[in-house]
Amino acid sequence: MSDISEATINRLPLYLRELEQLQRIGTARVQSGQIAKRLGFSDSQVRRDLSVLGSMGQRGVGYDVRSLIGTIRNQLGGDRSWNVVLVGVGNLGKALCGYRGFDQHGLNLVGVFDVDPAKIGTKLGDHVIRPLGELESLVEEQTVELAILAVPASVAPAVAQRLEVVGISGILNFAPVNVKQKLSSLTIVDVDLAIELQRLAHAVLRARSEKSED
Amino acid sequence: MSDISEATINRLPLYLRELEQLQRIGTARVQSGQIAKRLGFSDSQVRRDLSVLGSMGQRGVGYDVRSLIGTIRNQLGGDRSWNVVLVGVGNLGKALCGYRGFDQHGLNLVGVFDVDPAKIGTKLGDHVIRPLGELESLVEEQTVELAILAVPASVAPAVAQRLEVVGISGILNFAPVNVKQKLSSLTIVDVDLAIELQRLAHAVLRARSEKSED
Repeated sequence: MSDISEATINRLPLYLRELEQLQRIGTARVQSGQIAKRLGFSDSQVRRDLSVLGSMGQRGVGYDVRSLIGTIRNQLGGDRSWNVVLVGVGNLGKALCGYRGFDQHGLNLVGVFDVDPAKIGTKLGDHVIRPLGELESLVEEQTVELAILAVPASVAPAVAQRLEVVGISGILNFAPVNVKQKLSSLTIVDVDLAIELQRLAHAVLRARSEKSED
Repeated sequence: MSDISEATINRLPLYLRELEQLQRIGTARVQSGQIAKRLGFSDSQVRRDLSVLGSMGQRGVGYDVRSLIGTIRNQLGGDRSWNVVLVGVGNLGKALCGYRGFDQHGLNLVGVFDVDPAKIGTKLGDHVIRPLGELESLVEEQTVELAILAVPASVAPAVAQRLEVVGISGILNFAPVNVKQKLSSLTIVDVDLAIELQRLAHAVLRARSEKSED
């Protein structure tokens, strides 16, 4: 599992999304070149990534869409389902809660939490917003392993620590701050808008320099 | 520029954030090991990444924080500033607009757009929400190169196409759909919640399997 490079792992969800879209419109087989075009990757990149998974396309026939989806889901841990809690109901939390992609990826949003007394007890979609004090019992009852952290940066490290104490294994962190604790066994994935925009700026510069080299 | 691996490039913004936090609290020099601990990377990983930038720490003295920040910013294209527009003012767009990290990363949010007549003309923070029809003139006047796309998936590909037509070079796409057009020269960075959660699930599984191997 850990033999696959981080860069390849990061591309797997993109392949999965494309393959699922193809499956939805009834496509049974796909060539690496088609996937490459849709994603803006090179053909050899796609073949290399998929061969790492043990999936070899047949010349002229391509890959079986359904089995490739299974392989990638399995690799990503998406063949099992994960219970997820959302902590922090600001604009971002609201947007995340309304996101309709959880179910189809094996992710069950089982609880929504905030500290604001004005929000606690009100409804957000199908969920009643709960106080943080109820986190521990829910995590135990429902075996919650993942949390989405959408609280302000100032409180994010403390909330992350609390999430670890109650037994959460992984945090998707939207606060623009490092919530990784020393000696912690928590797994953190950060989504930071400024960082993503910097990646974009860099990618634009790189695309221009490659173009000027042509 | 294109000699640096994608994985390293993706880590550079994380280094930058840590270094900026260190600088804010008055730290002038830092050891690779300190950076490694804060980010949960290995020491050798940090030294390898920074050496690719041409930055060599001095044994026992470490890296000069200020000059390292300059080097990484330069590499990421962050030594120049970028004008950015936001398209789509739902919960996510509101959250993004309220994000206080733009300025310090050389990103200027110069316009906010939506198609909803009920929203157009109202204020969001310091910005008056404008109709999409005003996009082209703003992009020309202010030399806007980047856009944040926070519209529903159903309209995202069409809006992305329009952004390219008016002269945008790069899009940070939050819609859970592939907006990359065939033959397009647009640079796209996708942020998809389900994809990030899958990365997290995978990272949790990987951490567990590494632990059980110890």
